[in-house]
Amino acid sequence: MKMLINVAETVVADALRGMAAAHPELTVDVDNRVIVRRDAPVAGKVGLVSGGGSGHEPLHGGFVGRGMLDAACPGEIFTSPVPDQIARAAAAVDSGAGVLFIVKNYTGDVLNFDMAAELAEDEGVQVAKVLVNDDVAVTDSLFTAGRRGTGATLFVEKIAGAAAEEGAPLERVESIARQVNASSRSFGVALAACTTPAKGSPTFDLPSGELELGIGIHGEPGRERRRMMTSGEIADFAVDAVVDDLHPRSAVIALVNGMGATPLLELYGFNAEVQRALAVRGVTVARTLVGNYVTSLDMAGASLTVCQVDEELLRLWDAPVSTPALRWGI
Amino acid sequence: MKMLINVAETVVADALRGMAAAHPELTVDVDNRVIVRRDAPVAGKVGLVSGGGSGHEPLHGGFVGRGMLDAACPGEIFTSPVPDQIARAAAAVDSGAGVLFIVKNYTGDVLNFDMAAELAEDEGVQVAKVLVNDDVAVTDSLFTAGRRGTGATLFVEKIAGAAAEEGAPLERVESIARQVNASSRSFGVALAACTTPAKGSPTFDLPSGELELGIGIHGEPGRERRRMMTSGEIADFAVDAVVDDLHPRSAVIALVNGMGATPLLELYGFNAEVQRALAVRGVTVARTLVGNYVTSLDMAGASLTVCQVDEELLRLWDAPVSTPALRWGI
Repeated sequence: MKMLINVAETVVADALRGMAAAHPELTVDVDNRVIVRRDAPVAGKVGLVSGGGSGHEPLHGGFVGRGMLDAACPGEIFTSPVPDQIARAAAAVDSGAGVLFIVKNYTGDVLNFDMAAELAEDEGVQVAKVLVNDDVAVTDSLFTAGRRGTGATLFVEKIAGAAAEEGAPLERVESIARQVNASSRSFGVALAACTTPAKGSPTFDLPSGELELGIGIHGEPGRERRRMMTSGEIADFAVDAVVDDLHPRSAVIALVNGMGATPLLELYGFNAEVQRALAVRGVTVARTLVGNYVTSLDMAGASLTVCQVDEELLRLWDAPVSTPALRWGI
Repeated sequence: MKMLINVAETVVADALRGMAAAHPELTVDVDNRVIVRRDAPVAGKVGLVSGGGSGHEPLHGGFVGRGMLDAACPGEIFTSPVPDQIARAAAAVDSGAGVLFIVKNYTGDVLNFDMAAELAEDEGVQVAKVLVNDDVAVTDSLFTAGRRGTGATLFVEKIAGAAAEEGAPLERVESIARQVNASSRSFGVALAACTTPAKGSPTFDLPSGELELGIGIHGEPGRERRRMMTSGEIADFAVDAVVDDLHPRSAVIALVNGMGATPLLELYGFNAEVQRALAVRGVTVARTLVGNYVTSLDMAGASLTVCQVDEELLRLWDAPVSTPALRWGI
């Protein structure tokens, strides 16, 4: 498997150097692997910190900026960031109003953000945590007790980020983040596995003519393998999976997310089928986002995340945001 | 090769339905394959129309909106849009101030935009044309007489689009578009070929352990094949190719563009090497854009485009833009 890299050992550091060069509005500490918005800490504002293994870009570093994250901590590929790194990010963004950790539900991430919270609290930083666990495909998995955290992370970071930007206190930002997670469900499919630089060959074997339904963002097994399906059949399956679990009673925001290697042309076509399937199920879509946001290196496939919103969550979704990967209203 | 599609015949129409659902700020005519900003024609404003084969998304449909294109015409995959389609787009966006066609230099596109210009002029629309031919890799190719048009299309559409948005007359918008093209150079590499839905297998054969230097955006042959190189070596090769041709004497905007299937993590790492190589050559970089903008379906690889800018071009680059794929300042 060929990659556009120097050597596997420097992939994350090289990417951080490249981010630093492209985004002068961010402070990128390559040695300590912390990406911070340049004006942090913002006086009186709750700081939002997230992070996780690299390989899911633009998540999380691409979501640092006004109206979203204050800092992101990239770990090695598919590997949690370490407690010191996270605590350093918390210290960098705390204005005294406290910090919210947004943690995807993987065992390593949960442990390391917990330890980081203790370290930060020892330094006088007030820390709250929200766990993202939106993936309905499986309960428990290779790296998780309970449900995995995937696409809803974007919704939590955006909507809680908007609340923090408006000056909401820590307790309120945390409660909004929990509401967004509780209102979100995801389901993903893989048409082809990804390849990590360290391994150099696909992380799992997916035979020609088959797809994996309910895939995780690290190539963890899903619900089942089937013979290849059409875009419309996949949309029906994904929509059934999220709607049967969420039972939305108001409008949703839909994220039609690429896993990395699927062309945008196909993602838009898949979105057409997702919208049709949601309409059939009586679900109203208030906003739609289509693109590569929560990826899995060069995996081919897509995921659907829906987030049921009330007027307030939709207002916070529409609020201005200015990050490398998500930007509007500014 | 598995794809997230229904059937090959409906891929473009399906994608347009998906775009329509995701982007209420655009008017998408699925039957006639024209994407128009909803407020077109804008009184007194020159209309910008571009288009080309599908498979390069977000180019061009993702660049329709305030400050960039007024309309885009997607053809079948890797196939020029037809004259009627383009003339229809011109009529939809002409406010009386005239229309600029932005045409990538491929034989089919050139012929069809020429015919469309005649049709539009017969209907009383004043049309100017600019040809984009920035790819330094080869002179003449499978689909081109002269140089191919690739990444510079984004620069032409953004910068001329900003001039048009400010109310510049047709002659001035055309002259800026020509200046941007003349100031831009591109060079691309492929690590793996793309697969079109109609063919279902890779468009060319690239042996394991080799890359193609100077690739086009349809899998046209490049300059040469070599044994796989590091990101740093590829950056040196691409920077030498564009700098030796352009000889920039002022700062440049750099576009580090993914061909579709290369992870963003790798593109940022490649950007670090591109910035290093440009600095070694004494080239100052004023702005950098990293991401998938001018793609070739699921091709793996990247391209570098640089555009030498003066104060005015840089000001127009920084001007507000609001499209699905490029958005800032609004």
